Amino acid sequence: MIKVGIVGGTGYTGVELLRLLAAHPEVSLQAITSRSEEGLAVADMFPNLRGHVDLRFSAPDPEVLVACDVVFFATPNGIAMGQVPALLAAGVKVIDLAADFRLKDVTVWEKWYGMAHVCPEVVEEAVYGLPEINREAIRSARLVANPGCYPTAVTLGFLPLLEASLIDTGQLIADAKSGASGAGRGANVAMLLSEIDSSFKAYAAGGHRHLPEISEKLGLLAGGQVGLTFVPHLLPMIRGIHATLYGRLLGDSGDLQALYEQRYAGEGFVDVLPPGSHPETRTVRGGNMCRIAVHRPQGGDTVVVLSVIDNLVKGAAGQAVQNMNIMCGLEERLGLDMITVLP
Amino acid sequence: MIKVGIVGGTGYTGVELLRLLAAHPEVSLQAITSRSEEGLAVADMFPNLRGHVDLRFSAPDPEVLVACDVVFFATPNGIAMGQVPALLAAGVKVIDLAADFRLKDVTVWEKWYGMAHVCPEVVEEAVYGLPEINREAIRSARLVANPGCYPTAVTLGFLPLLEASLIDTGQLIADAKSGASGAGRGANVAMLLSEIDSSFKAYAAGGHRHLPEISEKLGLLAGGQVGLTFVPHLLPMIRGIHATLYGRLLGDSGDLQALYEQRYAGEGFVDVLPPGSHPETRTVRGGNMCRIAVHRPQGGDTVVVLSVIDNLVKGAAGQAVQNMNIMCGLEERLGLDMITVLP
Amino acid sequence: MIKVGIVGGTGYTGVELLRLLAAHPEVSLQAITSRSEEGLAVADMFPNLRGHVDLRFSAPDPEVLVACDVVFFATPNGIAMGQVPALLAAGVKVIDLAADFRLKDVTVWEKWYGMAHVCPEVVEEAVYGLPEINREAIRSARLVANPGCYPTAVTLGFLPLLEASLIDTGQLIADAKSGASGAGRGANVAMLLSEIDSSFKAYAAGGHRHLPEISEKLGLLAGGQVGLTFVPHLLPMIRGIHATLYGRLLGDSGDLQALYEQRYAGEGFVDVLPPGSHPETRTVRGGNMCRIAVHRPQGGDTVVVLSVIDNLVKGAAGQAVQNMNIMCGLEERLGLDMITVLP
Amino acid sequence: MIKVGIVGGTGYTGVELLRLLAAHPEVSLQAITSRSEEGLAVADMFPNLRGHVDLRFSAPDPEVLVACDVVFFATPNGIAMGQVPALLAAGVKVIDLAADFRLKDVTVWEKWYGMAHVCPEVVEEAVYGLPEINREAIRSARLVANPGCYPTAVTLGFLPLLEASLIDTGQLIADAKSGASGAGRGANVAMLLSEIDSSFKAYAAGGHRHLPEISEKLGLLAGGQVGLTFVPHLLPMIRGIHATLYGRLLGDSGDLQALYEQRYAGEGFVDVLPPGSHPETRTVRGGNMCRIAVHRPQGGDTVVVLSVIDNLVKGAAGQAVQNMNIMCGLEERLGLDMITVLP
Repeated sequence: MIKVGIVGGTGYTGVELLRLLAAHPEVSLQAITSRSEEGLAVADMFPNLRGHVDLRFSAPDPEVLVACDVVFFATPNGIAMGQVPALLAAGVKVIDLAADFRLKDVTVWEKWYGMAHVCPEVVEEAVYGLPEINREAIRSARLVANPGCYPTAVTLGFLPLLEASLIDTGQLIADAKSGASGAGRGANVAMLLSEIDSSFKAYAAGGHRHLPEISEKLGLLAGGQVGLTFVPHLLPMIRGIHATLYGRLLGDSGDLQALYEQRYAGEGFVDVLPPGSHPETRTVRGGNMCRIAVHRPQGGDTVVVLSVIDNLVKGAAGQAVQNMNIMCGLEERLGLDMITVLP
Repeated sequence: MIKVGIVGGTGYTGVELLRLLAAHPEVSLQAITSRSEEGLAVADMFPNLRGHVDLRFSAPDPEVLVACDVVFFATPNGIAMGQVPALLAAGVKVIDLAADFRLKDVTVWEKWYGMAHVCPEVVEEAVYGLPEINREAIRSARLVANPGCYPTAVTLGFLPLLEASLIDTGQLIADAKSGASGAGRGANVAMLLSEIDSSFKAYAAGGHRHLPEISEKLGLLAGGQVGLTFVPHLLPMIRGIHATLYGRLLGDSGDLQALYEQRYAGEGFVDVLPPGSHPETRTVRGGNMCRIAVHRPQGGDTVVVLSVIDNLVKGAAGQAVQNMNIMCGLEERLGLDMITVLP
Repeated sequence: MIKVGIVGGTGYTGVELLRLLAAHPEVSLQAITSRSEEGLAVADMFPNLRGHVDLRFSAPDPEVLVACDVVFFATPNGIAMGQVPALLAAGVKVIDLAADFRLKDVTVWEKWYGMAHVCPEVVEEAVYGLPEINREAIRSARLVANPGCYPTAVTLGFLPLLEASLIDTGQLIADAKSGASGAGRGANVAMLLSEIDSSFKAYAAGGHRHLPEISEKLGLLAGGQVGLTFVPHLLPMIRGIHATLYGRLLGDSGDLQALYEQRYAGEGFVDVLPPGSHPETRTVRGGNMCRIAVHRPQGGDTVVVLSVIDNLVKGAAGQAVQNMNIMCGLEERLGLDMITVLP
Repeated sequence: MIKVGIVGGTGYTGVELLRLLAAHPEVSLQAITSRSEEGLAVADMFPNLRGHVDLRFSAPDPEVLVACDVVFFATPNGIAMGQVPALLAAGVKVIDLAADFRLKDVTVWEKWYGMAHVCPEVVEEAVYGLPEINREAIRSARLVANPGCYPTAVTLGFLPLLEASLIDTGQLIADAKSGASGAGRGANVAMLLSEIDSSFKAYAAGGHRHLPEISEKLGLLAGGQVGLTFVPHLLPMIRGIHATLYGRLLGDSGDLQALYEQRYAGEGFVDVLPPGSHPETRTVRGGNMCRIAVHRPQGGDTVVVLSVIDNLVKGAAGQAVQNMNIMCGLEERLGLDMITVLP
């Protein structure tokens, strides 16, 4: 059994980690920390865990965390970087679900996140935890930077086209839509049901923190800097991301459907739909799957990729567990092979 | 492995049965029938099943069904009664998710369902599949009538009070609210999102088919006829039933919280919440649990019971699988012990 | 033109007052105050008002308010009582949308609202602003206590039965459901879309602040104390209240449909639906109407009344404008005769 | 008073026309026809009209329609073209809310709509009813083809850029999202709340009927054929369209904000938001406004335009009434100047 600790468990990624880890056959939950909720039974905050999780939130205790095999950080940005070096030094594997170690370019990170990075040397070591591109590196990593939700959906969508150098990398467009849980569980007027139900809007069209993350990762796939326009939108629902991606095909692109099917043939959590399909976010709600369809409208030179994930699962906690499985030498699908609920 | 067949699998209870049975460790799915969708892969209709269920809808074939150990009917009312006698005669166990065998009083059944019953003699044998009151009879049953969704939530809510003879059985009120999936997957203007989203209404206040079913079952618990007012309402959401129950306490009723906790202490699928709680339907979405809270406002003589279930799980397919487990001598929680997804 | 001021306009009742008053042909908006948002154009906070309202939020200025004919308080409970006496002394008519003057029994008020009342003598003068029972008193009132949303829906629903002494006043049940806007526009985790969408629950089953308000008003209609059980529930939608009311008929009750139609024949904002109807909250969204249907299931001795309003209109701002019209001698429907939007 | 008839009034555009026309000060409703609902009071089908509209659905009667000044067709595609010539010959002005007269290229129309056009000569005369580009032609038109909902949002969004020749017309992208009411009021499993609530998907990515309409109209603005990729998506809500438009700027584009503000300075139903804004569909729900924001992310060469309308108002019935006002010499805002309801 793998001994697991969670730092910062009162948000949506925290409860989602608990749901997945409590049902994981090889995991033993050791601690979930929260300064503000110390002593509260987690099942009292999240009643779906009643009868499944007996833990109480505890104050962060370095000794408990150091005794874990794996520690997940489900904390706000900027917290993990202060604690990770000590855990690594103690031989603990770490998976950070926040953004602290996602960008290799620390200067860019500091600009977008508005703070100084306290351990740039650790950033270098961190492995970006998108198994579909970094599986081998993850296997031997001590520290995994779990990808953002939008970056996961967008990167998996563009990946086969970029690897095959089929599109103009200077003109990538990602029109992305997310459910409200992506904004977290903080008290926030803008996220009240009364403010966002039955309505739809874009936000951060001028620049969102996931833009540099996506750009950096797509740049690695493209072998050079990319030109990306990324516009996120807010859906009047809880879970789900739908990324609609547009690229300009360069010359003869061959059979795009076959390209996607072959690239993802061995991937357990990417499902390429049949030609002409339109993935629905509900089919991945609660599951770790990314479903993708590729279209070429009117046979023109624009390719349209539709990519859906559950922002809290493949976009956060599920991918983190997938990374844990890889880091610990377990079967990658362990604890993640659930059938989603529909309707 | 138990060989299982499903008759009529294109509705919401059908896909829910498939979700639960596909993940059940002791079940082997043999067939799922649908005349209208013969040949279609079930995963093409319900993409959440992609990678988990390879079956195609098939035309009903008596030989295939007769070779099953258990057959579920997820058909419209009036279909099962035509086919059940032959299956029973062949030694197949049957669980009917429709209403054909729920009422012992066939005259009442014929009035509310508007058709003649073709096998009243089988009705007599059928066991009403609410394990919390009929577990022993279910264990040896050949035919189980799976309860309606409203009757499950209402009966489990009133049960301890009626068994203990604490309330006036002439004045029971059940104000019940259901998500839209209870109306099924038929094309129906009244169930369009544009008709029912962001709105709320009662329906069938003058009389709903679940009224005689609830009355008959509460009457058995009360040891005589009950006076019940039952008003169902339609919630602008997909899954979930919330029954708010009102009863007049007769004299000193003692500790109602203790009464409920004791009555359901051994039940794996009824969860009595702590005093002062209000169960949320989201905590049971996709799960087989019934969550109950009991209140006595201002210490008066009215008791208020709040009872929630997922109408498609504990109110339909999940309870059917629970019944199958009992009928087949399996652990009752097998395949039903999932943690629900929240938020 | 009537000069109108609004104190505290950043909440949902504030924006709703602005919507109605900006389109009112006899109103001239003088000021809308907010300490926290001083200087902000109201249309920047509520973009639906762009092009219709040019006002900016201003700091409360006694001189400006004293120069108004009518001042509305859309403030949290406990604010209005501190400012109303001075306004009344200056000859200003006041309509308080909060609870400060709703209960005649100040002791009860102080218990439920947890503070001392600073002007109990003014409470005595205040008129409860439900025009369907108090129209004449409102006409000459200097101070109107605008009713709560639940009390409006419940009182209008029970009113004909109580006036005609047809039901047992010791056993009234009001099972009420409200959209989320009733909880206001404050930052509150419990009201996030991610917490309450696609879910349903009761709340405050042990006692809600509207209970004493409803009890007091029903008691006046009944000519004595009533026994009321009131359970509010939270709907996963923005606007709308649906009250389902249950009463025990005493002896021969006659034609209940005719009773309701006659009682409300002259009322412009109560619409009794045809027999067998079920009012939908969407039909009153944005409008000042209360729609009511009366049922007697199976011809028994329980009467069921279904009553719907928009909690922000007939349950708050619309009723306040209706009261202003009456107090100022205007046609009662002025500015309130809109057709609601459906679907 | 203008005598108005509506052909085909049982759908969502029909009820929306009724809502707007019933409150219009210069309109006298003469008839609303429906073969299937003949004799039914429209207020019985659409209870929001109770007390406002006394009409009953009537069988189509040429004499009644011929006696009207203006006739609206709110019928399925292909119906109006069979009846319009006779009405025009009788001197009646016609506004068709369906697609029969929207495309000047009849060959393209026949291909996308799968039927032969019965009066191509009338197509030539029809004026495309987008007042912001065709106001003068509409003023003298006998027949107006009311634009589709997506075409309205997309055309108004791209218009200033195309008129000023600022973007590459070969690479236009319109990522559009619509509420479910755009699919109409037909019985349709795919539009059940249980199928589409809490989910999101693209549809018709390979080609939607509004594509040729948008292409033709943008081509007229661009002075030549355009290359457009149009991907519609379905939002889990009733009303609202949000078009997110992407274009490649050609050289120095100047001040885009000023360009939009100047172009729409005199337009009563296009509202250009301040720099950095993100229009929300809820702010136009029930109103005839189009709200637009223009962004140039990171100062790059991609322009992003956000354009929102209510698909049933500015995207259908409201624009039709706007056209009627222009055709009849009335003030263009008459009957359309309502404040929308928020939240």
